[in-house]
Amino acid sequence: MTDTSALDRFTCVIPAGGVGSRLWPLSRAKAPKFLLDLTGSGDSLLRATWNRLAPIAPPERIMVVTGNAHRDSVADQLPELLPENLVTESEPKDSSAAIGLAAAILELRDPEAILGSFAADHVIRGSVLFQRAVRTAVQAADQGYIATIGIHPGHPATGFGYIKCGAARSDLAPFDVYEVDEFVEKPDEATAAEYLRGGSYLWNAGMFIAKARVLLDQMALAEPELVAALREIAAVWDTKAAAAARERLWPGLPKIAIDYSVAEPAAAAGRMVCVAAHFEWDDVGDFASIADLLTRGRSGDLAVLGDGAQVLSDASSGIVVSESDRLVALVGMQDVVVVDTADVLLVTSKQHAQDVKSLVNRMKVTGGGHLL
Amino acid sequence: MTDTSALDRFTCVIPAGGVGSRLWPLSRAKAPKFLLDLTGSGDSLLRATWNRLAPIAPPERIMVVTGNAHRDSVADQLPELLPENLVTESEPKDSSAAIGLAAAILELRDPEAILGSFAADHVIRGSVLFQRAVRTAVQAADQGYIATIGIHPGHPATGFGYIKCGAARSDLAPFDVYEVDEFVEKPDEATAAEYLRGGSYLWNAGMFIAKARVLLDQMALAEPELVAALREIAAVWDTKAAAAARERLWPGLPKIAIDYSVAEPAAAAGRMVCVAAHFEWDDVGDFASIADLLTRGRSGDLAVLGDGAQVLSDASSGIVVSESDRLVALVGMQDVVVVDTADVLLVTSKQHAQDVKSLVNRMKVTGGGHLL
Repeated sequence: MTDTSALDRFTCVIPAGGVGSRLWPLSRAKAPKFLLDLTGSGDSLLRATWNRLAPIAPPERIMVVTGNAHRDSVADQLPELLPENLVTESEPKDSSAAIGLAAAILELRDPEAILGSFAADHVIRGSVLFQRAVRTAVQAADQGYIATIGIHPGHPATGFGYIKCGAARSDLAPFDVYEVDEFVEKPDEATAAEYLRGGSYLWNAGMFIAKARVLLDQMALAEPELVAALREIAAVWDTKAAAAARERLWPGLPKIAIDYSVAEPAAAAGRMVCVAAHFEWDDVGDFASIADLLTRGRSGDLAVLGDGAQVLSDASSGIVVSESDRLVALVGMQDVVVVDTADVLLVTSKQHAQDVKSLVNRMKVTGGGHLL
Repeated sequence: MTDTSALDRFTCVIPAGGVGSRLWPLSRAKAPKFLLDLTGSGDSLLRATWNRLAPIAPPERIMVVTGNAHRDSVADQLPELLPENLVTESEPKDSSAAIGLAAAILELRDPEAILGSFAADHVIRGSVLFQRAVRTAVQAADQGYIATIGIHPGHPATGFGYIKCGAARSDLAPFDVYEVDEFVEKPDEATAAEYLRGGSYLWNAGMFIAKARVLLDQMALAEPELVAALREIAAVWDTKAAAAARERLWPGLPKIAIDYSVAEPAAAAGRMVCVAAHFEWDDVGDFASIADLLTRGRSGDLAVLGDGAQVLSDASSGIVVSESDRLVALVGMQDVVVVDTADVLLVTSKQHAQDVKSLVNRMKVTGGGHLL
């Protein structure tokens, strides 16, 4: 089986879910993170993800899994997306169900189908390196492995999980493929620094590439009922019975991240490999990440995001996100985060950017939910 | 001459000038500080000043000096103000000209008239103590002295000038009247602490009470041409020739603070006395002052100013001033200053509240003047 034929059986799956509550009030239930332009490029993160995958797979082999509520927005942003490749969930059930349903549908279309899952709301710079890594991962997947792509860390990040890599697997590809020893959770600062020094740890970007069948069989070891239900829905997906099957089975599915149902057990069983890649990657989890991304890490700089943004800064740094044409004047504010939207103004600091989520959680309980 | 007759000859003069550029973007050329409600009382500082003086003087003996541009706003806020007591300047010429013109007009109406000058944009708590101090000052003024009112300092403020008091002048009033040794400029922190320990220094609140004639004669020693011009304008003030005289003479008047033309020379010559008073006073010069005023100095508190203000705070302190009904969300911001107006959003800190003026000055030069 040649590389080309493996790539011909390769479908990119884009799970487009998650509001991104650390990015509130920019992100909202109706304007989730993946629909936003967080880089000032003019493209939403979803559209940029599509553009990045387009050189690897033709439109008929790019699939999006999203919530019912976002069906129209996704279709608007991705006019090339085929209707049969827009898979909608009636309610969010985390990544095992979302990616698993895509896998079950693809498995029926082609028993040897290979899929790669790439989040709709990450930022990548260096598309050529990304595409090369994906092609390498597809080669490994075609050999029956579950492949992930690990990013050479640029700094001792504490906001990402890591992949501990083992021996090179030159049998699968001449370069860049390694065994996965284990996945590790977000480290503290000292541990992150140690990971960086050690050299065998890569950032876990949450990308998984495998044959649809292999992925589902692996998932079935941990979650047999989930996989059975997904295959049952998929069996009628392209028929009139699809809606009824989804209505009946979807609400009862367990919420579980694919990291736990697939990646960790597969790594423990030696079925997981990692492609080590050098592109720039960020999951832009909070406003501090966006600031760092836009200023390329120059901490004294002030990043500005927003088409009509007008900012006057006196000795200030951080980030201003403006959806208005009001003047935003800053005096003596270091590492400030100002997000100016029509109905909410957020002021915080890069140091407290993660705490925005707590505020959002509080609002769910105490009121103000209409602003979320 | 009894106390009562002196009070019958007493007119309160309210100079209402000064934009208060440290309070931008709340204060603007068209909405100067004295027209704003900075305490959440529902009254502007000007209106609150009037209310404070009303128990001392009837409406026909309260006079306001303001810029032409603010004539209508002042009349709106003070419907009791008599038209002949609304004195307008064609352009700002600082306090010697403003108070001097009022004095010259009052001197013609009654050669024994006593005036007291009280800024339109200060905040006072303890009106009864204030009124008592004014009555005592009027007694001293009736004896030919120029009286000021000094405030017992509540803390070692570096933002105010001080009055060094000397011997008690029980000959003028049984309590609270002292010689003025000298006026001193805003001190540094160490000096302010020393003033507080020493006990003989009071805050200079910029209030001056004197016979109109005495004030003008004192001013004429330093600024003879200014006083001659003011008396020339006053001579025709209540006639049709007033506008022409003002147009001819006003533009050429020197800009000089009454502290330099009257207070300091009078103190040096032994003609100045001070009434020591215990009311709370603040010139609310910047947003840090407003925050301290509203939180009564509790530095961990968050002050909120604005009728429709909606604020959600997570571990934040400082002040939010809102002219909108948008939600202002703060996360982990200490001593923050957020001013949310229709066309400008300002974010700074209490520590940098004074620097707002620099930004405003920069905008005058580099553009954005329409927002000032």
